[in-house]
Amino acid sequence: MTTGTLHVVPVTLGGEDVAAVLPQSAREILTGLDYFIVENEKTARHFLKLLPHPKAIRELTLELFDKDSSPERARSLLQPLLSGRSAAVLSEAGCPAIADPGARLVEAAPRARLRVTPLVGPSALLLDLMSSGFNGQRFAFHGYLPVKAQDCKNEIAKLERESRERDMTQLFIETPYRNEALFNTLLECCQPNTRLCVAADLTLPDESVQSASISDWRQRSDVVIGRRPAVFLLYAR
Amino acid sequence: MTTGTLHVVPVTLGGEDVAAVLPQSAREILTGLDYFIVENEKTARHFLKLLPHPKAIRELTLELFDKDSSPERARSLLQPLLSGRSAAVLSEAGCPAIADPGARLVEAAPRARLRVTPLVGPSALLLDLMSSGFNGQRFAFHGYLPVKAQDCKNEIAKLERESRERDMTQLFIETPYRNEALFNTLLECCQPNTRLCVAADLTLPDESVQSASISDWRQRSDVVIGRRPAVFLLYAR
Repeated sequence: MTTGTLHVVPVTLGGEDVAAVLPQSAREILTGLDYFIVENEKTARHFLKLLPHPKAIRELTLELFDKDSSPERARSLLQPLLSGRSAAVLSEAGCPAIADPGARLVEAAPRARLRVTPLVGPSALLLDLMSSGFNGQRFAFHGYLPVKAQDCKNEIAKLERESRERDMTQLFIETPYRNEALFNTLLECCQPNTRLCVAADLTLPDESVQSASISDWRQRSDVVIGRRPAVFLLYAR
Repeated sequence: MTTGTLHVVPVTLGGEDVAAVLPQSAREILTGLDYFIVENEKTARHFLKLLPHPKAIRELTLELFDKDSSPERARSLLQPLLSGRSAAVLSEAGCPAIADPGARLVEAAPRARLRVTPLVGPSALLLDLMSSGFNGQRFAFHGYLPVKAQDCKNEIAKLERESRERDMTQLFIETPYRNEALFNTLLECCQPNTRLCVAADLTLPDESVQSASISDWRQRSDVVIGRRPAVFLLYAR
């Protein structure tokens, strides 16, 4: 018996225009499936309507797999694939398994001898790195920095030193309501000629990429970082 | 006067089916442009034909910008954008400015107060990471490892240690004719329970993602890495 495929499928980064961010072939694969393993049911239903999926959402199987889901849950969700049904993993936004929980599901698939197929779509990290002008030959994504002020400062100092020594772009994120605090800490701690890029809402109408040296950022009085999901990129030379 | 936009546009990863990897909106932007700054003229011409671009290729401006191009060249290529012409940066394959030379062009754009817009498309690194099942919450791309045998072994040991300490996926590449040698060095140097993924030709008919522990890789006798462009992913726990 042929087993199913686990399609790893990016969704929009919050925008409504699916055709703007997903190739036709990815949309065709999605409209042919009826089994979706999703990080967030509400955003997944919305995305499937936008696609649009030809079936009514209530006729589709949506199963939740998020950061709190267990490896046992992953194995049980992959069970139908062993008898030939295919599935798509959908994140809340962007690429599954990149800066989000899908990886544990993907990890379980080859152990069950299932085929994993990633499809092309938007990744905020990649789009931000592409538009920062910073080094894309060497880069690292660190997720969230420590919350405690002194730990955060120590981590920033470490990332900045490493960026300089290895000629490497450092990427990290913050929960939106702490964006301003992290931005101010970066301006306080980093060297004047270190470059900082703050990117938000790429592929959306409010898309913004602001890239400048720490000394230039310090001189600007018009900076608004805001409480939207942003990626911070640091590049020291 | 309105200045032009620098579109940072991914191309196919070597495949012929543009619709499979580029969203409709990216193709529409490309077909509306007549100025292309390209890493490789031959592959760029081929890609523009596949798109297809409505104009004859000889009516389009193609300018070379590769790893040997100077910052002065970047500034001069951006000059037409100051008077309102828009341009697209095209890599030889995948995303400009990610593991390839476009970054120096993008870096020069905001200094000239030009708008930079990245478009969605395929990135081998991202697709490989998505399908590896390794940690996508923390990862680093290191480009090429050192060529000298002992330096390479030292670097692998460092990356493996760092992967374990930071819970981080390490990505790197090799020139295709050295793939086998790097693969054998990894099997020789790494710990048995460290996981190694070798991914090649994603989005192409010959796409392959092989992910296993070092001890499992050592026991396999059927391994063929081959001389095609591959990405190596290492994840130690």
